[in-house]
Amino acid sequence: MDLISEDDAALLVVYGKKGKPKKFLVKVKRGKVLHTHKGSIDLSEIIGKEWGCVIETSKGERVEVHKPILTDYIEKIGRATQIIYPKDAGFMILKSGIRPGDTVVEIGTGSGALTMVLANFLGRSGRLYSYDIRRESLETAERNLRLLGIDNVVLKHKDAKEGIDESNVDAIFLDIPDPWEILPQVHERLKPNGPFLAFLPSCEQVNKTVLKAREVGFGLIEIHEILDREYESDERRTRPAPWMIGHTGFIVIGRKISRS
Amino acid sequence: MDLISEDDAALLVVYGKKGKPKKFLVKVKRGKVLHTHKGSIDLSEIIGKEWGCVIETSKGERVEVHKPILTDYIEKIGRATQIIYPKDAGFMILKSGIRPGDTVVEIGTGSGALTMVLANFLGRSGRLYSYDIRRESLETAERNLRLLGIDNVVLKHKDAKEGIDESNVDAIFLDIPDPWEILPQVHERLKPNGPFLAFLPSCEQVNKTVLKAREVGFGLIEIHEILDREYESDERRTRPAPWMIGHTGFIVIGRKISRS
Amino acid sequence: MDLISEDDAALLVVYGKKGKPKKFLVKVKRGKVLHTHKGSIDLSEIIGKEWGCVIETSKGERVEVHKPILTDYIEKIGRATQIIYPKDAGFMILKSGIRPGDTVVEIGTGSGALTMVLANFLGRSGRLYSYDIRRESLETAERNLRLLGIDNVVLKHKDAKEGIDESNVDAIFLDIPDPWEILPQVHERLKPNGPFLAFLPSCEQVNKTVLKAREVGFGLIEIHEILDREYESDERRTRPAPWMIGHTGFIVIGRKISRS
Amino acid sequence: MDLISEDDAALLVVYGKKGKPKKFLVKVKRGKVLHTHKGSIDLSEIIGKEWGCVIETSKGERVEVHKPILTDYIEKIGRATQIIYPKDAGFMILKSGIRPGDTVVEIGTGSGALTMVLANFLGRSGRLYSYDIRRESLETAERNLRLLGIDNVVLKHKDAKEGIDESNVDAIFLDIPDPWEILPQVHERLKPNGPFLAFLPSCEQVNKTVLKAREVGFGLIEIHEILDREYESDERRTRPAPWMIGHTGFIVIGRKISRS
Repeated sequence: MDLISEDDAALLVVYGKKGKPKKFLVKVKRGKVLHTHKGSIDLSEIIGKEWGCVIETSKGERVEVHKPILTDYIEKIGRATQIIYPKDAGFMILKSGIRPGDTVVEIGTGSGALTMVLANFLGRSGRLYSYDIRRESLETAERNLRLLGIDNVVLKHKDAKEGIDESNVDAIFLDIPDPWEILPQVHERLKPNGPFLAFLPSCEQVNKTVLKAREVGFGLIEIHEILDREYESDERRTRPAPWMIGHTGFIVIGRKISRS
Repeated sequence: MDLISEDDAALLVVYGKKGKPKKFLVKVKRGKVLHTHKGSIDLSEIIGKEWGCVIETSKGERVEVHKPILTDYIEKIGRATQIIYPKDAGFMILKSGIRPGDTVVEIGTGSGALTMVLANFLGRSGRLYSYDIRRESLETAERNLRLLGIDNVVLKHKDAKEGIDESNVDAIFLDIPDPWEILPQVHERLKPNGPFLAFLPSCEQVNKTVLKAREVGFGLIEIHEILDREYESDERRTRPAPWMIGHTGFIVIGRKISRS
Repeated sequence: MDLISEDDAALLVVYGKKGKPKKFLVKVKRGKVLHTHKGSIDLSEIIGKEWGCVIETSKGERVEVHKPILTDYIEKIGRATQIIYPKDAGFMILKSGIRPGDTVVEIGTGSGALTMVLANFLGRSGRLYSYDIRRESLETAERNLRLLGIDNVVLKHKDAKEGIDESNVDAIFLDIPDPWEILPQVHERLKPNGPFLAFLPSCEQVNKTVLKAREVGFGLIEIHEILDREYESDERRTRPAPWMIGHTGFIVIGRKISRS
Repeated sequence: MDLISEDDAALLVVYGKKGKPKKFLVKVKRGKVLHTHKGSIDLSEIIGKEWGCVIETSKGERVEVHKPILTDYIEKIGRATQIIYPKDAGFMILKSGIRPGDTVVEIGTGSGALTMVLANFLGRSGRLYSYDIRRESLETAERNLRLLGIDNVVLKHKDAKEGIDESNVDAIFLDIPDPWEILPQVHERLKPNGPFLAFLPSCEQVNKTVLKAREVGFGLIEIHEILDREYESDERRTRPAPWMIGHTGFIVIGRKISRS
């Protein structure tokens, strides 16, 4: 049975006014105390308990103890740097047609959010090669991957424009500002009919990527923007949340066709 | 090398006015001829060619030959029955925290679209149990799964309200009209802190599900609606498509907490 | 008392499956019969009745008899040509700060939909000058305005790029493909601090308009896209409509500032 | 010529990082100094200048001096209390079919935002009767109306459920939590075929209002939600703003039909 142990990561949740959750992603340590605006929480107390247990703060406020999942880690990373959100990452994976065991290339490791999602999806038999030109991105990503026990990723400190080493790749994900510069190499390194998926903040980048993709030899080109509306519901009423994320990025997809 | 063979499924694409793709998902047979508004296509011609090759119709119109991916099959199913779209399925999988190898229950097989996505994601080491009370749904789903070579799904002709057989389940997906009726059993059968994810068309269903989930013992309850905006981009301009899907369904998520 | 008379315009509504309204905008004539898929309607029958009365088709189906309002006319025009929708027109008027009695210029009469809305808003004491280079647009607009009894509009068959005749104008509305070409004249002809409002289908047009507006001397530049989600609600459920209009156009607004 | 005078309201705008405008709605007074994070502004300096002039703060930062329009006042009110936004108010007015000179009733004055928009639209020859049960709402609204020089509004401290005094009204706007309670009186007091328009935050309120409207005798019932997406555009790129208002309210509309 999987009980809470020292050194586990735990997601502690206290609820504020209007039932809004306040989340704390912590490492469980005997003797460690977490201070919140609702009172302090003694982490010793949860060791040996079941995931999903409910405890109380020093002020008697309810605390839920959750076992963090991948999107909880990504949410935490997202507070510090730009990330790809679940709404975007989930859609991209489905539209890429990749399957556990596949070989995938990612250009632009960034914070490693999409890296983690892809690696988790590909499983132990799959392989992800992730390129970035910034050493600090790779270091952050490596730390995050280790935290999650993910070991099927090869991080590469290299400018992919100077060459992608892998070939016959099942899919290539692009999270860089100028993917059009690299689409010829991407086309060359994909397996026949393999897709590229680019994540892009602006209309101008979308246009440049689409035009280059047509020229280089991609078919079934699609452009999507995924929006996530949150709702609130209780005894009194159901309604969309008053604020929402207005924009993260556009997704451009194409599948390799033969040049002939 | 993976070339096009007889009996393979192929996605043929011709482009209409304004570059809009018209897609044909066909089984490749020697001697079979597909008739389109852009001329006929002799399927014999593509046998032995590479995926992603480009051929011509009898009228000299360009035809792209794609190797169909999971979402192409789902898109085809979607023309006949209600399906869960990539935007919703991808998001649900990420928010469920499941991983390849996990054990998952689906209540409401329906057309089998989500079934296929889940089974593909769980991989050979995972297991999906899918319940439906309509025998014809299960037969359609079985046919679709066989078509894709997916064999890690157990289809069950049973009303889950009378009992879910599996226990310590990693996640339960609900695609039935009245999930609140079954949330107590769902809670019981999930592993500690395991999530449920319900897909629901209306506000009233959302409200009933949320209230029941709180009562039964779920935390971190969230309600999402995912929207997919498509764009068009060419040499002249970039803009959102004039029509969009206005609504598929709401997604309600909760994670099991201990009742105490 | 305002009863239905011969030669009045009337909006007849029959309801199809799922309660979807089917609308007929007709001229009331004694002896005229309207044929619908729900049976025929004898228009003689409604003469002398009250607006909002309910009659029956020859097959006994319910028919509501509404007095058409401006948006009903625009909806009808919209079936034939491109129009500006209520969601866009209403927003543009409010953001223009115009008041009944003001003097306004419109560049690009088009179908006359926005023309009608502006003219109706300005009232008898106001004045609208509307420019178009296509004679047929002006003819259509003139017919539509006469139909509605609107007489405060001066239609001009002239390319506004060769000069806007009016000066010290309260606001200028632009519904042409290349408003940036004309922004210097627009700036010159507006009263101090007067606004321009441009309606534009694509991102590239938005960008060109915004950059030119900054250069020419406009402040408080804003870009908006207004979306209209329709919902369905009955005894059983409330939910967004399954389809929606995905895009009409972007709205760019700026207020004239002194060049110095 | 309309120059800036003492006691005029002025909208001063300084631009922060990323060009985001910071707005100050002030009364112009000789000797008054406004302190901003970009330096102080001496209001004496703008007296006698043209609207739209550009001055500098004590730190040499650019300040635009705009003549406030109705939506600027509403935006300011919106910082303190719940308001109806331009996107909603503009749409409601267009869909109501009202014209300058009409007689309109508003139930729920609230902050007076919609009151101001309606009164401005109806013009001097029109009349607006606005009901509220909270005396402080009426006082705020009165102050706001006086500020704008609007004098065609009759504010009524009365519960409209106990009776609407006016009859043969052109349109009735409802901004109260339970409009279904009052729909029978609304129906009675409207002119034949006159519309009601209700603004409602939640799905449950929408459903109750729609069901009651059908029962009481309204036709062409529609439910809309208007969304306003803002965009950013400069030399480098065009894209939707990262945050947006997720929800203000739903709009329910119906037109009176005869009960028979």
